[in-house]
Amino acid sequence: MAHFRYLSFLTDYGLEDGFVAACHGVAARVAPHAGIIDVTHLVPPGDVRRGAAVLAQTVPYLPPAVHVAVVDPGVGTARRGVAVAAGESLFVGPDNGLLSWAVTGSGGAARAFSLTNRALWAERVAATFHGRDIFMPVAAHLAGDAELAAAGTEIDVSDLVSLPAPERVVRDSLADGEVLTVDRFGNIQLTITASDAAQIGLTSGAAALIRSGPHQLRIPYRDMFGAVAPGELVAYADSAGLVSIAVNGGNAAERLDLAPGARVSIAAAPQTIR
Amino acid sequence: MAHFRYLSFLTDYGLEDGFVAACHGVAARVAPHAGIIDVTHLVPPGDVRRGAAVLAQTVPYLPPAVHVAVVDPGVGTARRGVAVAAGESLFVGPDNGLLSWAVTGSGGAARAFSLTNRALWAERVAATFHGRDIFMPVAAHLAGDAELAAAGTEIDVSDLVSLPAPERVVRDSLADGEVLTVDRFGNIQLTITASDAAQIGLTSGAAALIRSGPHQLRIPYRDMFGAVAPGELVAYADSAGLVSIAVNGGNAAERLDLAPGARVSIAAAPQTIR
Amino acid sequence: MAHFRYLSFLTDYGLEDGFVAACHGVAARVAPHAGIIDVTHLVPPGDVRRGAAVLAQTVPYLPPAVHVAVVDPGVGTARRGVAVAAGESLFVGPDNGLLSWAVTGSGGAARAFSLTNRALWAERVAATFHGRDIFMPVAAHLAGDAELAAAGTEIDVSDLVSLPAPERVVRDSLADGEVLTVDRFGNIQLTITASDAAQIGLTSGAAALIRSGPHQLRIPYRDMFGAVAPGELVAYADSAGLVSIAVNGGNAAERLDLAPGARVSIAAAPQTIR
Repeated sequence: MAHFRYLSFLTDYGLEDGFVAACHGVAARVAPHAGIIDVTHLVPPGDVRRGAAVLAQTVPYLPPAVHVAVVDPGVGTARRGVAVAAGESLFVGPDNGLLSWAVTGSGGAARAFSLTNRALWAERVAATFHGRDIFMPVAAHLAGDAELAAAGTEIDVSDLVSLPAPERVVRDSLADGEVLTVDRFGNIQLTITASDAAQIGLTSGAAALIRSGPHQLRIPYRDMFGAVAPGELVAYADSAGLVSIAVNGGNAAERLDLAPGARVSIAAAPQTIR
Repeated sequence: MAHFRYLSFLTDYGLEDGFVAACHGVAARVAPHAGIIDVTHLVPPGDVRRGAAVLAQTVPYLPPAVHVAVVDPGVGTARRGVAVAAGESLFVGPDNGLLSWAVTGSGGAARAFSLTNRALWAERVAATFHGRDIFMPVAAHLAGDAELAAAGTEIDVSDLVSLPAPERVVRDSLADGEVLTVDRFGNIQLTITASDAAQIGLTSGAAALIRSGPHQLRIPYRDMFGAVAPGELVAYADSAGLVSIAVNGGNAAERLDLAPGARVSIAAAPQTIR
Repeated sequence: MAHFRYLSFLTDYGLEDGFVAACHGVAARVAPHAGIIDVTHLVPPGDVRRGAAVLAQTVPYLPPAVHVAVVDPGVGTARRGVAVAAGESLFVGPDNGLLSWAVTGSGGAARAFSLTNRALWAERVAATFHGRDIFMPVAAHLAGDAELAAAGTEIDVSDLVSLPAPERVVRDSLADGEVLTVDRFGNIQLTITASDAAQIGLTSGAAALIRSGPHQLRIPYRDMFGAVAPGELVAYADSAGLVSIAVNGGNAAERLDLAPGARVSIAAAPQTIR
């Protein structure tokens, strides 16, 4: 009996070449029973951190699956490939931190294996396309009849490469963090959580003081961007439980010129008559 | 027995974040039997009219399905979510007009329900992501075992929000309309139908006089853009039954600087020796 | 019994309109048993050569399928549609050369039919959308119960339109070719094969002399781009067996200003002390 009904797939391969399709084809040959959910293939080339963030925020909504993720600037070098069991799912990809936030969010790594069993790989492996020739074939076998232990040599889960957790510090009335991602709408997602916000006394209906570099803004903190007038800035707890900054009907990242990695701090604004 | 074998899905979520995949995951959990046909996720952010046009022009070619569409600048505000029965399909999305042209094209709304039954929603609902937490879970339940009436409170179909029909007026020898959409190729699709063209005496082989603002062009009206030389302008009845303007092998929208909403009128040109 | 479990689909339709979805819908109606693997829909509009290259490089990794490809600047003109048997697959599309490299790579055309049987088409055919109204319905029927011969009139396989093979000439110590494609990462794929490179004495570990126009570069030839320092140029045998030029972690096409069609020659550099 097959182990998993679904594969998920995240890469930086883009959609204009046939790279994603070649991997789908490999999966269809090995595990025709498995549906594939494409998470995204538009991670900026080589941006492991961005891939890790999207994966971690999406996996909680996916069914149990073998999650394949490939953002792999070190393809063909010494970095190893791994298969990791966490929660009800498996994660397959390069051991460069890409999987780490999603694994943590799934309850942490229970077991991990280095992908050393060539019997599960493609017959010929291109040094520059391990997604097609190693990660997807291994994942498809694991979704089918292969046991996790067949993937290769077991490794200590503490040896897995982890990205540093998104930076944030909460002190009294101030939360310090950074821009984690900017989404399609230009909404700025911070590393600061909605719980952090509550802890510093920032709750829906109040105003937030937001500082980045020399700039400071006073922005309403609401439940949703629709709570302010079109064109106005608003901070809110987003659908991933993180504090985000948006312009209702507009693009906050462009307006504020904030990109991933920018340092941002938040405080609750003193109450004033408004 | 499941009610629908297919879901379709149209949004302005883009493909670079994991938003679409999270919704696919929700559907896979609730209705694993259902295939998902992605209509598009590249509607410009918040462009309800554009979403409505793409949906209405695509649905006639889809199998009976629960069609989920989310272009929802008012997410989290008072606008309600609805499920609408029309033809052999159901339509689920915000009640902001997005569904209206497709519903009309499917024979009109037979019944409509406000999505008030929280038992069909996700356990926790993010104020900014009803696609993931309300619309898709409800749709997946309706594709499975849930009856339409389980979606919530029945409402009068005449209370559904409708976008105004695309503007067009036909008078004697003149058809007045506007640019409805511009497609990937830069082809300009007007609100004027091929029947309107016939009514004003414009038939294939003739020439069209096209006016927009102070500009006037004489363009051949043909069956297809391949009927004129490469680089030349041509008007034709497009694959949706609407009059379109193209440049054979080129981009008409750039050439003529016409965007959605621009007013355009068409007449049959007097016959001349050509 | 259905003939094929999979369809594959490559076009220049883009993803912002509903064109691809309409075709998926048509396939779902005619052949609901068949999974669809989207190869790409981002071929630059009308770029038959680019479509042919992506198709030929992807098909070897797909399961046996009816491969539908539509890059069709001549839609609606006299060019015919064809269904071609090659290897274990069928290929359906316009007879403009788009299919030719993939057919050759699949072992060559065994039989070919002109799509003249209107019983397999949509009831109404738009002159500008044969993908939806002819190619996909025919392909879906062929994936189901229809025999290949039902597609239409058999034609001599030697009458099929072929693109000229990618240009390359190997003379003694020099390989002359051109840029075949540039991928998402800006990697420059040449028409020169890894075997050509071996034949002129260029093997991994050596240095390549690369000339294009007045420019000449000396670039390490390695197994993978990860073998050079970040930001450095490298030549390597890519995942399709062709010589490619990359910048490790960067964009070679931008750096070298080389686009598809540019002439490039390669030689092994004289050994020097490095």
